[in-house]
Amino acid sequence: MTTIKKAACIGGGVIGGAWAARFLLAGIDVAMFDPHPEATRIVGEVLANAERAYAMLTMAPLPAKGKLTFVKSVEEAVQGADWIQESVPERVDLKRNVITQIDAAADPKALIGSSTSGIMPTDLQRDMKHPERMFVAHPYNPVYLLPLAELVGGERTSKETLQEAKAKLAPIGMKGVIINKEIEAFVGDRLLEAVWREGLWLIKDDICDTETLDDVIRYSFGMRWAQMGMFETYRIAGGEAGMRHFLAQFGPCLSWPWTKLMNVVDLDDELVDKIAGQSDAQSGARGIRDLERIRDENLVGIMHALKSGDGGKGWGAGKLLADFEESLWAKAEKPKTDLGEAQPIRILDTKVNAAWVDYNGHMTEHRYLQVFGDTSDGLLRLIGVDLDYVRNGHSYYTVETHIRNLGEAKLGDALYSTCQILSHDEKRLHIFSTIYNAATSEPVATAEQMLLHVDSKASKSVPALPEVIAKVEAIAGAHAQLAKPEGVGRSVGQKR
Amino acid sequence: MTTIKKAACIGGGVIGGAWAARFLLAGIDVAMFDPHPEATRIVGEVLANAERAYAMLTMAPLPAKGKLTFVKSVEEAVQGADWIQESVPERVDLKRNVITQIDAAADPKALIGSSTSGIMPTDLQRDMKHPERMFVAHPYNPVYLLPLAELVGGERTSKETLQEAKAKLAPIGMKGVIINKEIEAFVGDRLLEAVWREGLWLIKDDICDTETLDDVIRYSFGMRWAQMGMFETYRIAGGEAGMRHFLAQFGPCLSWPWTKLMNVVDLDDELVDKIAGQSDAQSGARGIRDLERIRDENLVGIMHALKSGDGGKGWGAGKLLADFEESLWAKAEKPKTDLGEAQPIRILDTKVNAAWVDYNGHMTEHRYLQVFGDTSDGLLRLIGVDLDYVRNGHSYYTVETHIRNLGEAKLGDALYSTCQILSHDEKRLHIFSTIYNAATSEPVATAEQMLLHVDSKASKSVPALPEVIAKVEAIAGAHAQLAKPEGVGRSVGQKR
Repeated sequence: MTTIKKAACIGGGVIGGAWAARFLLAGIDVAMFDPHPEATRIVGEVLANAERAYAMLTMAPLPAKGKLTFVKSVEEAVQGADWIQESVPERVDLKRNVITQIDAAADPKALIGSSTSGIMPTDLQRDMKHPERMFVAHPYNPVYLLPLAELVGGERTSKETLQEAKAKLAPIGMKGVIINKEIEAFVGDRLLEAVWREGLWLIKDDICDTETLDDVIRYSFGMRWAQMGMFETYRIAGGEAGMRHFLAQFGPCLSWPWTKLMNVVDLDDELVDKIAGQSDAQSGARGIRDLERIRDENLVGIMHALKSGDGGKGWGAGKLLADFEESLWAKAEKPKTDLGEAQPIRILDTKVNAAWVDYNGHMTEHRYLQVFGDTSDGLLRLIGVDLDYVRNGHSYYTVETHIRNLGEAKLGDALYSTCQILSHDEKRLHIFSTIYNAATSEPVATAEQMLLHVDSKASKSVPALPEVIAKVEAIAGAHAQLAKPEGVGRSVGQKR
Repeated sequence: MTTIKKAACIGGGVIGGAWAARFLLAGIDVAMFDPHPEATRIVGEVLANAERAYAMLTMAPLPAKGKLTFVKSVEEAVQGADWIQESVPERVDLKRNVITQIDAAADPKALIGSSTSGIMPTDLQRDMKHPERMFVAHPYNPVYLLPLAELVGGERTSKETLQEAKAKLAPIGMKGVIINKEIEAFVGDRLLEAVWREGLWLIKDDICDTETLDDVIRYSFGMRWAQMGMFETYRIAGGEAGMRHFLAQFGPCLSWPWTKLMNVVDLDDELVDKIAGQSDAQSGARGIRDLERIRDENLVGIMHALKSGDGGKGWGAGKLLADFEESLWAKAEKPKTDLGEAQPIRILDTKVNAAWVDYNGHMTEHRYLQVFGDTSDGLLRLIGVDLDYVRNGHSYYTVETHIRNLGEAKLGDALYSTCQILSHDEKRLHIFSTIYNAATSEPVATAEQMLLHVDSKASKSVPALPEVIAKVEAIAGAHAQLAKPEGVGRSVGQKR
């Protein structure tokens, strides 16, 4: 896999800071240059948001965080970097100067991406010595969660550069989409600009207010667009006859006098006042931090939902998340506990996710079993029962579980889990897992489970493969020295 | 609550059929008139899709389905109906004639909604005797899942009519949004038309293909729009300074020469061929039914995710779903089992949800506990522990659970659950629940659980209120005659 070894971020606002967060959370060191006096604070806030979101986003273990260094110049930042991301303010002369400066100081093979949301890369690469490695990598806010980067080359950008950029974004959980030809604003902002323009007319003409317009989007096509785009959705609307039928049906209305898009709305003081006032009425009861939190939790929830899409195989951004998690598991460090040690193996570190809580903010009952299931999956990976093993038709199924709920876990609580092997034979694995509150180290819940090794196609129990049994024996041997945990062998309601 | 007593659907295509499904699944009888020779088949297919989606959408018990009657005339259809929905083809003369006919035959107080996606209601109500009760109720595909209906009045529509329509849509799980002023295409289709127009240019000019354009949407702002709309999202982008700051920053680009919206694209044969070909390449490997299924499962998953939004309180379409479920529970019939009978109480009927399966299509481990949790919640409702009881600071918490996994549940399998009280005292409730495969009546899993009555603010166990204990005693008295189920008192790994 093509990976970024060291990244440089030139410009550390909301966009540059979030790029840095993406790199750091994927284990990549980042050198950051931003002359803004508050750059450290702003980047720190974005990074905190990103870490919070990532803790909810993935159960897979993130690598050790990369090292963030604030440096004093562009030249210092780009030393040794193989991906340099420019995110300075949106002015062509400023961006061009910074990129020319980067070009002069960086390794000639290093990729240089610009975060511009509208300027053509040809205009940015004009004065470069090595323009072939420069391109636009245009992300979407919040950059630490939304996976898209539009990759746009200029006249002198090489095709290989765009392919390499796309390949290097995948391991950090991003989706690089290569745009065929450069135009100002590329693809996404063209579409957004169209909606924005029409939306401004609707507000100006008092057809509706901002809240109504937002409701129209989010209670309808917004949920279609989170998973399919426009053309795939309309293909379905065309029915069996497909896209051609849809075009025949809806093509003519293009020339009907419906839209005001032919005119540009004048965003004068009156319209600005109107929009700002309506927006206050709509959203003013909540602060920006609160809205950000809700947005991020919802994005995580939507990506989780899409991860189960298409019968569990994953769909769109959810499939991308599943792939990202698989790559994280593949790169995962050994567990914090030495497997030969006589202590329960620490398996997961996670946080109580927004999607996991009831309206009291308490973790719901079945989410405990989800964490226990992820814990036993973690143990299984350690004994060689990974996705390949499962794809080859063998697996362990849980046949029996005893859970004790000992405490309450609340939204945002950091948790970790451990697992101990109690006993085993060639088919059975008898384990005991504990979920701890990471802040207090108090146990929140325990689970005693019996797992049975199966031939999943024949749906019957069969002995595990020898290499798996060998690994089980190594761990079980060490765990044999441990005391039997409190609660083992309990039945429900049994006196203590 | 204002509810629809009987509905009439005039026109039963994909839109009219889905309106009928919304009414029927909410327990409302529907008379359908559509002269199309295949109307029965088409409505049947839409209804099957809707039932499948609803089975996944809500755990709350749907009321007994309304009765669907196909009738031979508009006059027959509207007899006794208090909501009449017109969904005939999109031609102003045809729609106007049908609406005039409805007006003449219907109760003068009955509401008449048109499904038109673009025609102004003033043009439709021109020849009516009672135009004040006529309006546009414009839904979005798939109508049985997306909750939005844009409510638009014409010159002669009364304000009360729009308010009444909005109130009557809520109990069927829909979100009526009232548009201030009528314009052609209203609000949603104006926005969609803008994106569509710009999108056609991008394809025609080879900036990208249809798949790339869809990816740009679904990996980025599509996920923002599923939960917030455009203005609330941009308010966040404006940061602490809010909407005014955002407008100042992004207002000027309205006059930049970025867009092609000033021109209308010519959707000639060449462009149609290009789009149809790209769409085949993008989505052709899957049939329309397959894409529909994936879309619907994703929509259900997104709404479920949003139901957990804002710290469990629900957000957007998820909050709407939570409200819908609460109203379903409030209207729920008594359980199928007589509470005084000496047999386990049948609590839930559900289906294995797309979001519940792993990539093998098997229900994941923790989803069993989710169904058991919903089952014990169902029992709690029967003994008076409902949302109000919980809001007043008392609840039952699960402290111990023993699960036996006896079989496999697969995507789409119909399941039901039963619950038996084993023993109880003033604080404790010892129960045994079973999940059955509804097709075979074989048990798939059992759970023995101990629940403890708590003061949730003080986080300590306290006796349940007397009226709750009285109800527990009535059920437990009947259940005392039952044999102890197999598996009670088991510990993990115990020999049989």
